Order: sequence, then C-alpha cells, then structure tokens
Amino acid sequence: MLKSVLQTIDARRKQIASSLADFLRIPSVSSNPAHAADMQRCAQWLSGQLAEAGLEAKIMPTRGHPVVLAKSQHRPGRPTVLFYGHYDVQPPDPLDLWTTPPFEPTVRGNALFARGAVDDKGQVWAHVQAILAWQEHGLPVNLVVLVEGEEEIGSEHLAEFMGANHDALVADIAVISDTNQFARGVPAITYALRGLVYMEVTLTGPSHDLHSGLYGGAVPNPANLLCELLATLHDKQGRVDIPGFYDQVAPITPQEREMWRTLPMDEAAFAGELKTTPIGEAGFSTLERIWARPTCDINGITAGYQGPGAKTVIPSKASAKVSMRLVPNQDSLAISDAFTEAMQQRCPRGASIQVVCHSHTPAALVPMHSPAMELAAEAVEIGFGIRPALIRGGGSIPVVGLIKSILGIDTLLVGFGLPDDRVHSPDEKFDLDALHSGTRTAAALYERLAHLEGIH
Amino acid sequence: MLKSVLQTIDARRKQIASSLADFLRIPSVSSNPAHAADMQRCAQWLSGQLAEAGLEAKIMPTRGHPVVLAKSQHRPGRPTVLFYGHYDVQPPDPLDLWTTPPFEPTVRGNALFARGAVDDKGQVWAHVQAILAWQEHGLPVNLVVLVEGEEEIGSEHLAEFMGANHDALVADIAVISDTNQFARGVPAITYALRGLVYMEVTLTGPSHDLHSGLYGGAVPNPANLLCELLATLHDKQGRVDIPGFYDQVAPITPQEREMWRTLPMDEAAFAGELKTTPIGEAGFSTLERIWARPTCDINGITAGYQGPGAKTVIPSKASAKVSMRLVPNQDSLAISDAFTEAMQQRCPRGASIQVVCHSHTPAALVPMHSPAMELAAEAVEIGFGIRPALIRGGGSIPVVGLIKSILGIDTLLVGFGLPDDRVHSPDEKFDLDALHSGTRTAAALYERLAHLEGIH
Repeated sequence: MLKSVLQTIDARRKQIASSLADFLRIPSVSSNPAHAADMQRCAQWLSGQLAEAGLEAKIMPTRGHPVVLAKSQHRPGRPTVLFYGHYDVQPPDPLDLWTTPPFEPTVRGNALFARGAVDDKGQVWAHVQAILAWQEHGLPVNLVVLVEGEEEIGSEHLAEFMGANHDALVADIAVISDTNQFARGVPAITYALRGLVYMEVTLTGPSHDLHSGLYGGAVPNPANLLCELLATLHDKQGRVDIPGFYDQVAPITPQEREMWRTLPMDEAAFAGELKTTPIGEAGFSTLERIWARPTCDINGITAGYQGPGAKTVIPSKASAKVSMRLVPNQDSLAISDAFTEAMQQRCPRGASIQVVCHSHTPAALVPMHSPAMELAAEAVEIGFGIRPALIRGGGSIPVVGLIKSILGIDTLLVGFGLPDDRVHSPDEKFDLDALHSGTRTAAALYERLAHLEGIH
Repeated sequence: MLKSVLQTIDARRKQIASSLADFLRIPSVSSNPAHAADMQRCAQWLSGQLAEAGLEAKIMPTRGHPVVLAKSQHRPGRPTVLFYGHYDVQPPDPLDLWTTPPFEPTVRGNALFARGAVDDKGQVWAHVQAILAWQEHGLPVNLVVLVEGEEEIGSEHLAEFMGANHDALVADIAVISDTNQFARGVPAITYALRGLVYMEVTLTGPSHDLHSGLYGGAVPNPANLLCELLATLHDKQGRVDIPGFYDQVAPITPQEREMWRTLPMDEAAFAGELKTTPIGEAGFSTLERIWARPTCDINGITAGYQGPGAKTVIPSKASAKVSMRLVPNQDSLAISDAFTEAMQQRCPRGASIQVVCHSHTPAALVPMHSPAMELAAEAVEIGFGIRPALIRGGGSIPVVGLIKSILGIDTLLVGFGLPDDRVHSPDEKFDLDALHSGTRTAAALYERLAHLEGIH
C-alpha cells in the first residue's frame, strides 16, 4: 500500500507545490494584532484542507489565536500518532530586503519563496498531502493533528489548551516537522532542541527627552548606560556573564562529539555564505556552539532619534530585547530570574531599570536510541532514499516540552528544511525537492509507526 | 524715541503673541524631505513679515533650504548690525508625548507651546516685532537680517551662502537670540558656546538577518558588539575615552568659576525637574559640565526588532548616532578624526565598521569685556529691568564661528528662553513674559548699538 501512496505523491508533485502557495498567501502573522482576521482565515482554510483529506477537522478557540484540531476515524488496536505544526509565521519585516513580496509565493530556481514557506506551513503541508494520499487506502495509524497559531509568539495559550483537551490528544508518540535536514543530501532527525528565555530591558534617565547641548554632560543618558549595561552580558571569552548561567548545562558526550565531527560541516562555507567570521564561546566548534551551548543575543535595541540625518537629543528611555537560548538541563525560570537580578544589580547609576520576561521555555531532549526513532529513520530513508543523521537543533519548539509534561510522550523531530532556507529572515524559502521528499517521508512515517508498540 | 518704541511694544503685547502662532503653525522641519514645501512656505511668510516691518526682504536660494535676507535702508555713518536667526525646527517626534500637537500652537499657563516656540522662531519674532515698532521713527542702526533654514541640520550650506553674499553681510557686530536666560528673573548674555561633532557608527555582522536559534552563539551579533564598542566611549570617571580628546580643552578660569558659583543654580531643583540624578565627569559641577566640559552622547541607537512582543532575530546591522559637544579650544575636525580612528581600532572581531561624520563645528568664545557687550547689557537691563548675568551655553550655534571667520566680527548672544523650555523635546514652549521682555530688549539693543564705534 505504501508503494501506491508514494506513487500518488510522486504523480501530484507539482500540484502539491502550487496548492501550498494558497496557504502561504495568507499573512498569518501572529505577533501583529492587525493580522487577527488573517489568523482566523488561515485556520479556516487549513481546517478545510484537513477535512478534504478525510479527517474530522475543527477550529478550537483559545484566549489567543485559534487551534486547528483534526483526527482520523479511531480504529482500536493501532498506535495513535499526534502530529503538531503551526500555521502562524514571523513578521516579514524588513520588507525592502525581500526579492519578491513575502506573501506572494514565487518559485525561483528550485525553491518556493514566501514567509512561512518552510517555517512551518510548507512542512505542515507535506503532512496534509501525505494524509490526503493515504485517503484511498485508509491511514495505517490513528492520527490526531494539532496545528496552532501562536508558535512564533511563545505558544502562550497552548499549555492551557492541551490541558483542557487532554483526552482528545492522548497518543503514543508525537511527530513534528519544524526542523532541518543537516544539509542538502543529508536528511536528519533532531533529538534535542534549545530552549528560549526572551527578556526586555528598559532604562529610564531624565523624565523627558533633552537637548544634548543644554544638558549633555550633566545628566544620565540611558542610551550610553544601556550600552554599558549590555556590554557586561559577555566576558572576553565570549561566555555569557550571568551568575550561575552555566551551572546546570549538560556537557556534550564523547559519543555526540564524535558523531558531529563526521558530519559534512564546512566552516568556511558557513562563514562565506553569511559573509562573516564565525565567533562565539571559546573552546567549541560552530556546531557545538549552536546545538549544545547556551547564548545571549540582543534581538533588538532602540533609543532616541533613528531617522535620516542628525537630531541632538538625549533620550529619556532606551530599551533592548534580549534572548537567551538554553540547553539541557538549564532551568528556564531560574535563568530568567538570574538575568533579571544581574541587570538590576548592574544597572548604572542615574538610570532606573525595568526588566520584563516575555517567555521562557526549557530545552528539549528526546531519547536518541528507541524503537520510534528507528522507525522514523526508516521512514526518512524511504522518503529521501538516504539514511538520516541524528542531530540537534539550535532553535526552540516549546511544544516539545509541553507534549512531554502534559501528554507524557516523546516527540520525533523529522524536519525537511535546509540550513540556508532563511527562516525568520527576508527571502525565506522551501526547496521543492525537500517538499517532495518530505511528503514521501510523512507518508512512510504513518506506515512505519503502525509497528510501534504502545499504550494503544 | 526708545521710550515711545517700548510703549508701542507694551501696547502690542497680545498681538505679538498671537501673530507668532501663525509662524509656529508652519511645520518647517528641515531634516525631513517631506517638509520641503513647508520650508519654502515658511521662508515666504517670514520674508513677507520683514517687508511689512519696512525692510527690503528677499528669499535667497541655497543648495539646501532657502535663506531669508532683509536689510534696512542704509544710512552712512551708523554702525551696521547683522541679526541672525533660523526658521527651521527640530523634528517633533515622539509625537505621542506632546500634550497638544506640535504645530498647533496653544497657550497654557503663561506660555505658548509648539515646536519652535523658543528655538528659534519665537526669538526671531521678538526681533521682527522690535523692527516693526521702530518703523515709525526709523531704525537707529543699519540692519541686515539673515534667517536660515538649516540650523537644526548643521547649517550645511550657510558658509557657502555667506561667502557668496559677503558684501551684503558686512557689519560691525552680529546679534543672535537663540540662547537662554539663566533662570526666570536672571536674564543673561552668553559669551561662549560649545561646538558639535555629530557621527554615525554602523556595524555589520552577517550579510542578512538570522534566526537566533539556528545561528545564535556561532555568529557575530552586531547589536551585542555595538554595545560593547560604545561602552568604551567613557571611562569609570565619566570622562570621554578617546585618545587626545582633552588635550586642547581650555581650562575654566578662576574668575569664571567664581562668577558661576554666585549664580542661583539649584542642583536639587535641576535633578528634581528632570526626575533624575545629575551625573557626569568627576570633579566638576553641573554648570561646569554643561558649559565648559566636552561630552559624548548617544543620540540614537537602532538594531533588530523594535515592535511589540518578541522576534528571535540576529540583526545583520546595528547603528548609532553619537555626538560630541566641544569646548574652546578643541579642534572639531581633529576630534572627528580621533573618534573615527578609536572606533575603527576598537571595532570588535566579527563586525565590519562604517563611521560617518554628519557635521563638525568648533566651540565659540566671544570677548567677555568689550564696548558691544556693555551696550548689550544695558539693552537687556532696559528690556527686562534687571542687569544680565554673563554666562556660557552648552549648545552649539555653528554660525557664530562662520560669522567670525567669514565676516571677521563677534556675535552678541542675547537670548530670551528659559532653561525649562524643553528645547528639542515634546512640549517645547516660550514664556509669554520672556517674549515680551525679549521684544523690548531687541528694540533697546538696536538703539544702544547705535553708540558702537565700528568700521562703518
């Protein structure tokens, strides 16, 4: 049966790409209230597609953006798989750096360019099309599909939703496709992800903006002071200088170090593509820095005049968005607290400080050696024709932690993206071969996972 | 005759304030190309008012915004006075912090609130009204009026204009009203101003914005690095840490120190009004820091995501506008070069740096004891009923240096503002008593300066 399903997918290759463009045209930017109606429209469109693929699909409200929930007809005696994805996307700005508009999907070369092309609409689409291809024969597993609309803003209402709908979500294993292949020709399964703590720091100096001539030299300038404060976040070895920051960090095992060393990682090509010098924590390789070491990055900073030319102002306020990527076994809440305390203690004289935590998510780690992992590896080999590498990821998918804590199950991170897909950046894309092999992999995965021993 | 002129001004007190509002309604923001037509309209309006006051007025093009040039009928044997002002204003943002819109002049309490109320339209208006009040009797001096439209953007084309129109501008003394009284009840003449060097520093890391999860920890973050770089601008004593920065600084004389010590400077009130702690270079009072010590302030900084909520981006670029206020005898070009060199040498590994100089103007110092200064002091005493203090100013008026170098004459800085006028900030205002006394002072000044021995 799988052979026939794969043939169906091969025959529909072009059709799958062109229908994905309809999904991508909806500007489902979750962080921007101006797109609230687009979020609804996107959830409705997706729910309709899942219904056409034979699932019972519905839109479930949350206190934020709605969740799309769908399930196949339950047949006892089979494993149940929970597929998770998200239909929301990152803001597209800066708009002027897109070659073609972010919400007008365009094929150039062998890739489809649009905001959300790979993160995560394109990868969700591979599963929707795999489900559709199984429709004639019937899915070999029981399937629950949960596609949320708040992943890019910290999945704020998802825990509440999963708790309230626990019974509908019970499964033996979860599957997420929101990660990458290691490289073109090196498909991969991801067994660990970093966590994320996202903070905002605001310094206030004088009660209002001042003329830098009439006051300069005698009043605190919060922009000067914010630079001074944020410069304390790293030491000279590139380590994050917050008390206790590294205390709980799980070391890289010798086995992992060896496994990663054999991957075709070209540091020169990495630097060349970004036109930059790889720099970071001393004593670690680029892969180790991205996969297994925590970070602290300023994601945004703003103060004073930013228009063309000159304005001689001493701003009243200066603020920065600062996020930390966490690794196993750092405690995200403890890190948020340590950051806040360090900033408050180091706040330069003359400024008052406000520190806000936007979100905190711990890192995720799934067992590297397990029956489910082996079945997933077989599915990738069927889909791509190549045995997958076992890798980590530097990003964060908060739901992996929720799935573990609320539903008690592990997650298979079987992703189809490529490292140069420009996720979160202008000119985000999804490779059309990856879309095709990914759709085949998803179809094979639902067949392979029928062999899983579980609680079913 | 002066008595009659002052009576005219006293009688027109309300009318002077209400006609100033017409001047303030024109949004003559020189830095914003969107206001180019408003700049033309403002020049035309002002030129019309000067013509109504009996001068021969015209609008002269420059390669930037036009200059308004007007002159009285030349009568030999009298001193010639050059009055300089500017009709352009600072950008009004942040707009949401204005109590009433910046270009809808509104009287609250005893003040007129609008962008440009005191800097410099309101003070130019005092002179226009003084000239008008002299119309019946005839001005006692030969007068040349030059009102430019580029003061707030560094007077870029003024030197060229003054050179090209040298003969029309020849005078014995210059007068500018673009400074402050020391305090309410303490009118003042300013004998020194600080200079200004305005720079922009841009760091570039990766060639495009990156996902902070997929790349964070292994690539240079220009926002992190810009904070690190700008934090080197000051040492722990609050001194500017650029090689050679203080080498040419003229020390404060014992006479000046004593003179300033007797001024009614209330450090607690200064801090209280700004809701901040006065901080700055160690070893100097607030007045000394503002008047006689150079500074380095970040006027604007920008990188990455600045909207609501969170975006996990590593920005490709980060930039800051940084200006330095200079004191006599610092060389503005040498300081610009030293800043550029220091930033380039300290540029953190992983970033490329661009440093641009937007403008550089040296400090100005006019003789404290001279016949012109004494005549001006008498005029202020007539206008305000109080003998003025001799003070310095922390701001910069580039034209003072140009007047000295191109026309070879000194400038009397007789200003009418109050220290809490919120120049360059939201809710800029001009006190209506100051407008009135200032108009009286201008009228008296044109009478007193007729006694000047000069080249006429």
